[in-house]
Amino acid sequence: MPSSTQVQLVRRPRGWPTEEDFRTVSVELGDLAPGQVRVRNEFLSVDPYMRGRMNDGPSYAPPYALGETMTGAAVGRVEESTSDELPVGALVLHGLGWRDVTQADASAFRRVEEIPGGPSSLHLGLFGMPGLTAYAGLTAVAGLREGERVFVSGAAGAVGTAAGQIARLLGARTVIGSAGSAEKVALLTSRYGYDVALNYKEAPIREQLRAAAPEGIDVFFDNVGGDHLEAALDVLNPNGRAAVCGSISAYNDSAPKPGPDNLSRIVTRTLTLRGFLVGQHPDLADEYREAVTRWFAAGELAYDETVVDGVENAVTAFLSMLRGGNTGKMVVRV
Amino acid sequence: MPSSTQVQLVRRPRGWPTEEDFRTVSVELGDLAPGQVRVRNEFLSVDPYMRGRMNDGPSYAPPYALGETMTGAAVGRVEESTSDELPVGALVLHGLGWRDVTQADASAFRRVEEIPGGPSSLHLGLFGMPGLTAYAGLTAVAGLREGERVFVSGAAGAVGTAAGQIARLLGARTVIGSAGSAEKVALLTSRYGYDVALNYKEAPIREQLRAAAPEGIDVFFDNVGGDHLEAALDVLNPNGRAAVCGSISAYNDSAPKPGPDNLSRIVTRTLTLRGFLVGQHPDLADEYREAVTRWFAAGELAYDETVVDGVENAVTAFLSMLRGGNTGKMVVRV
Repeated sequence: MPSSTQVQLVRRPRGWPTEEDFRTVSVELGDLAPGQVRVRNEFLSVDPYMRGRMNDGPSYAPPYALGETMTGAAVGRVEESTSDELPVGALVLHGLGWRDVTQADASAFRRVEEIPGGPSSLHLGLFGMPGLTAYAGLTAVAGLREGERVFVSGAAGAVGTAAGQIARLLGARTVIGSAGSAEKVALLTSRYGYDVALNYKEAPIREQLRAAAPEGIDVFFDNVGGDHLEAALDVLNPNGRAAVCGSISAYNDSAPKPGPDNLSRIVTRTLTLRGFLVGQHPDLADEYREAVTRWFAAGELAYDETVVDGVENAVTAFLSMLRGGNTGKMVVRV
Repeated sequence: MPSSTQVQLVRRPRGWPTEEDFRTVSVELGDLAPGQVRVRNEFLSVDPYMRGRMNDGPSYAPPYALGETMTGAAVGRVEESTSDELPVGALVLHGLGWRDVTQADASAFRRVEEIPGGPSSLHLGLFGMPGLTAYAGLTAVAGLREGERVFVSGAAGAVGTAAGQIARLLGARTVIGSAGSAEKVALLTSRYGYDVALNYKEAPIREQLRAAAPEGIDVFFDNVGGDHLEAALDVLNPNGRAAVCGSISAYNDSAPKPGPDNLSRIVTRTLTLRGFLVGQHPDLADEYREAVTRWFAAGELAYDETVVDGVENAVTAFLSMLRGGNTGKMVVRV
């Protein structure tokens, strides 16, 4: 009988999660029932939104169950199949999360294309949910128009590296990004289409952004919240739009922190701040897949991945990502 | 020669304005040039937005000039005319502000209808900019749908009294309002269509709103900002919308104050906060005029006015309004 190594949440973290909030278990897998497949995962995704689901409180998704295996995006290959739809060898995307091997009904898996010139992990990043998030945020949520000025917070992450490049491909005039290290900042301008990159650990982002955006910004793509939102509100031009994708700066706060001191600009500059989830934009999935495939094939989209090996290190990878240890998408290689 | 008593801004207020920031002057008026009219004002408007224009900093409208007469909405009657378009006796609306008599080119005035059963001051309130603000905020900005739950901050003011009633006329299921006195709160439920009214001076609005809205709210019409915005963010349902019309709680702050501690709900509840100006919705003016005329004639719209007599008391009226001394529209009767 094959077995599956899985990582489970056993305690709700308060503040920063620790290794003790999780456990690694080995589960014996039975024989495949008719219509099932066994998938050996190649890569598991760790994403910021997962932090919210570890809490008990209401979030946009239901809380993770304690004592059960962490769910989340993963990509793998069918190694045994009793399903006509998914033959052995098929590359599949699924939501069954932090485990090395999984078996379930074929309907739990979605077959995806091999990506010419790219690893299967791109289905968890640029070609997957983070890429579509960047695209939907810039287009449907923020209504980016050609010639506009854009600021992306958390620009060196999975969503941010996609957002900078997509903003440029969509005709943005200026793209400014923020990140938390000199290396990331250098990469943003050299590789990801950012005109200006700001290291928020070097000086207050508010001062830096004001200096970097003398003509203001029209669109803010926010992954960070807190001081970054405050900085953006200072420089958003009249009728500016913020696509609020995340607020990673606050995910591990054990007590609420006061917000920006300049929210009155929402009125005086007639701004729109709009929170969104990629799941609200299923209509864009085909359009984005077509665009990203074309752009990537033409060499117009770069990507980085930070790879941690071993399903048993999924928690380590997740915590590192929350602390900004990744450049581009953080993935766990099984 | 007729003369005109006018109130001018002479110093930019820091924090709360004082009488010393203004002066009252008497100006001799010359003969009418061809095409001009002389208008004796009946009512002058004092509005919250005027506070922003007293500052030097950027606002949505240019700052008031020092040493010049305060501009703003006023309604009056033509008492002398060399214009074919505006005969003596015509009721006109204009933007020439805090003066008892004004004369200018006929093009500076817009002729308005007499309102059956209502004073001409309604053109400054329910039939005017505040009424259209309420309507545009609820419809175009917040996209209120039938059956939704609404919270209006500053509900006893000119915009708020209109917003509560219009929300109900548009089919809102529940309308909750806040105001700053027991009298206002009583009036909101007895006269203005509010189901529940909260006195924010009695207990923290955050606690009160949470108790009053067990099923949350879908639309927030914000005139106040600060703690009211924070309270609303706590209870806005997924995909909730805030039409951010004003933040009167902050207009006289001499230093910025921290904002709500729960802005991360913009993401977790996928909320939209949208600042707006009535001037962005000229397309709604005809539609609203038709609706308000019909509703008012049918007895479906109540109004209150707080009237201060004498152009020389315009500053007193303005300051009283900023402190919540008005119920419904605050006007100066000339």
